[in-house]
Amino acid sequence: MTRRVRLIGIGSGSLDQLTGEARAALASVDYVVAAAKHRHPGGSLPPGDSDPPHKDPLLAVRQALCDAAGVALVEVPDPPRDRDPRDYGAAVRDWHEARAAAYERVLLERPGDVGFLVWGDPSLYDSTIRVVEQVLERGRLDFDYDVLPGLAAPQLLAARHRIVLHEVGQPVLITTGRRLAEAVAEGHPNIVVMLDGSLAARDLPAPDRWRIWWSANLGTPAEELVSGPLGGVLAQIDRARERARNASGWVMETYLLRCLEDAEA
Amino acid sequence: MTRRVRLIGIGSGSLDQLTGEARAALASVDYVVAAAKHRHPGGSLPPGDSDPPHKDPLLAVRQALCDAAGVALVEVPDPPRDRDPRDYGAAVRDWHEARAAAYERVLLERPGDVGFLVWGDPSLYDSTIRVVEQVLERGRLDFDYDVLPGLAAPQLLAARHRIVLHEVGQPVLITTGRRLAEAVAEGHPNIVVMLDGSLAARDLPAPDRWRIWWSANLGTPAEELVSGPLGGVLAQIDRARERARNASGWVMETYLLRCLEDAEA
Repeated sequence: MTRRVRLIGIGSGSLDQLTGEARAALASVDYVVAAAKHRHPGGSLPPGDSDPPHKDPLLAVRQALCDAAGVALVEVPDPPRDRDPRDYGAAVRDWHEARAAAYERVLLERPGDVGFLVWGDPSLYDSTIRVVEQVLERGRLDFDYDVLPGLAAPQLLAARHRIVLHEVGQPVLITTGRRLAEAVAEGHPNIVVMLDGSLAARDLPAPDRWRIWWSANLGTPAEELVSGPLGGVLAQIDRARERARNASGWVMETYLLRCLEDAEA
Repeated sequence: MTRRVRLIGIGSGSLDQLTGEARAALASVDYVVAAAKHRHPGGSLPPGDSDPPHKDPLLAVRQALCDAAGVALVEVPDPPRDRDPRDYGAAVRDWHEARAAAYERVLLERPGDVGFLVWGDPSLYDSTIRVVEQVLERGRLDFDYDVLPGLAAPQLLAARHRIVLHEVGQPVLITTGRRLAEAVAEGHPNIVVMLDGSLAARDLPAPDRWRIWWSANLGTPAEELVSGPLGGVLAQIDRARERARNASGWVMETYLLRCLEDAEA
């Protein structure tokens, strides 16, 4: 039988946010591999790595899930990463390659089916699929892998605010804090921003044109929610972000911005 | 204690696709209200109503979930809807209002906490939140409501194809088959299309510029997957769609389109 690798979306990491099939997948593996990240100060996260930038709480979440499923957790030191590179694409490629090599070492040393617990959902701003593909491309290991979806931050945002992410029948753009200004310049009236940690929306021209539904640390005990006209709630958001950061040691913002003229049209 | 209404995302409707908290929410209500739709021929679905257009299979799915949870299901005949109106917005508003009146009648007649089972996730192309808000606005009922997220079709699409929905750090636009041509004309290079049933992508100019990751009836026994250069896989998709339609009695397509020049850039 071919060895199996399973990428399991864990939403915000509490056991009751996993689907039944994700829990079954977790219970089916011999061990889980988790990257032990270098802690780095500050909040904002580069795209391609959706984990909050603080080691202990996230390992603790994964450890708790593994304990509940009776599965061993194998920690792999995460390769260091250039957080402010001149060539962003090349830096991401180097880091994926180093991660693939690190995972390959563990899988070569330790037989059995393997799980990776992916914060949120593997389909958005997460590198696990790409890195697992690179492990296969290196050619020293043979396995099948599958992907079990988990709840993504935009869904949690919508559920907590009890909103739909778009006006009736209209589109929604999902992007990162890093690319928000670009999306607004292109004229998008309805934008979900992920992986922000310092409210890129603060710098938008004409904040009174926008309504925001904002969140930090969704699905965790430190979750914060604010909504209202962007210009009018900035101070409230700043206070909420500090509460989330103080409570968690990290902060990740997810929010929806909607252009008011469009919403009223 | 205030009466409680719970909107529960059920993904593609199998029990093991529900999260633990969604299952607990389902088990907590006194009954579930489900619209009994008029069957209509053809496959494509108008935005704002993400249920496949065939009555029996979907009621059967909801009935099975309710049976598993030991909860009664109350069927409410769905108000008829103009599927080809001159004023689309007004038709949707009329239909939401008629639905709100129908739900109100049931909730007035029948006491207890109430669940609504939402196909996919309530945050994308679903009207349940808006209709429940309208029930409250009518002013004859008082209740609290909450939203439990479920797996949305784009996540299932990505999981089955084992892809991320965007290039590293790039945005993704989510839209409907009805608005695909508009999104392409605006220059979006990376588009998820939902609520399609006749491959709106077929009519794109220069199909060889696009790669498609296509699905029909995700998460059901009739699920179909095709991927490749758009121009090269149209016939394969047509055959797969017919298999899905024959097996289910309905077909709903979800797919990702990515502009090849951009992907290679």
